[in-house]
Amino acid sequence: MTDCKEADFTEHTLSSKTVYRGNLLHVLEDEVRLPDGKTGRREYVRHPGAVMIVPFINHDTVVLVRQYRYPLRRHFYELPAGKIDPGEEPLVTARRELREECGYEAEHWRHLMTVHPCIGYSDERIELYLARGLAHVGTALDDEEFIEVLHVPFREALDWLRQGRITEVKALIGLLLAERIAAAEAW
Amino acid sequence: MTDCKEADFTEHTLSSKTVYRGNLLHVLEDEVRLPDGKTGRREYVRHPGAVMIVPFINHDTVVLVRQYRYPLRRHFYELPAGKIDPGEEPLVTARRELREECGYEAEHWRHLMTVHPCIGYSDERIELYLARGLAHVGTALDDEEFIEVLHVPFREALDWLRQGRITEVKALIGLLLAERIAAAEAW
Repeated sequence: MTDCKEADFTEHTLSSKTVYRGNLLHVLEDEVRLPDGKTGRREYVRHPGAVMIVPFINHDTVVLVRQYRYPLRRHFYELPAGKIDPGEEPLVTARRELREECGYEAEHWRHLMTVHPCIGYSDERIELYLARGLAHVGTALDDEEFIEVLHVPFREALDWLRQGRITEVKALIGLLLAERIAAAEAW
Repeated sequence: MTDCKEADFTEHTLSSKTVYRGNLLHVLEDEVRLPDGKTGRREYVRHPGAVMIVPFINHDTVVLVRQYRYPLRRHFYELPAGKIDPGEEPLVTARRELREECGYEAEHWRHLMTVHPCIGYSDERIELYLARGLAHVGTALDDEEFIEVLHVPFREALDWLRQGRITEVKALIGLLLAERIAAAEAW
């Protein structure tokens, strides 16, 4: 055990094949050369990337969404989010998702952070944005999107986090970062 | 748009089949009945669940790990973590992983939160723990685990988070929660 020796554990691709391609998921199985020279197998999902928005209606009210997430067979409280289309700028995706899911346009946009939700078995990255100065412009939800839009006092959203009512990781990070920024900048 | 009407968007399983079963990943494809009566397809990964530990060596130093994550083809700074074995209590997993990955036993354990990293396409849940009162007892890394163990001042870990050097979601949440607790309890 040493501090910051920055060892090189790079795994080199020997072969790669698609083992499942659905409408949503693309799963690959690669053979790799491990750092000790042995070979290993890596199974993972290829993802186009996503965005998430922390939208403030005013300085103390945030817009949440609630939807059913089939893999866990339950509803979740989340923040508006969506996948990046091929070639799309992440900020364009963010503007589109905020309008399509929640019916808002925002005047002020700020990139908060790039995060990686599932590095053990997915290459997904998520760009997190803070949106302020919202104007309601109506909604145009995609077919098959069953989403409830909620206006929640920011303090209450933080209570929901503490109580375990919000457990989805990117929403948690967005709310905790917004809390830090609000504290630092005294909104 | 209304507040807290708590609509029921439950999707009911019509059929379910395994479309890929590797050494790590189990991928399913289900046909579901959507809330509007139409049918839809859901593709997702079944995961055994995981734990992560925020281990404090002393009140201002945290133990991080650094490893290569093949899906993203780069090294990541993380906190010690691992998958729950079948039938294993999550706290037992956490004690095991802290010992196996980093060589530490901890006197004080505190459950911080249950989080869901990837609700769009995985049923994974992660139990987050805070561990204090560490004693070094040596390591016993699994074969094929290439991991660097680092002692990092907690303030520096928070700087790494701000600088985008730490982007893995559960590590971010663990550090942000530890910061809140440290502030509230004045460690």
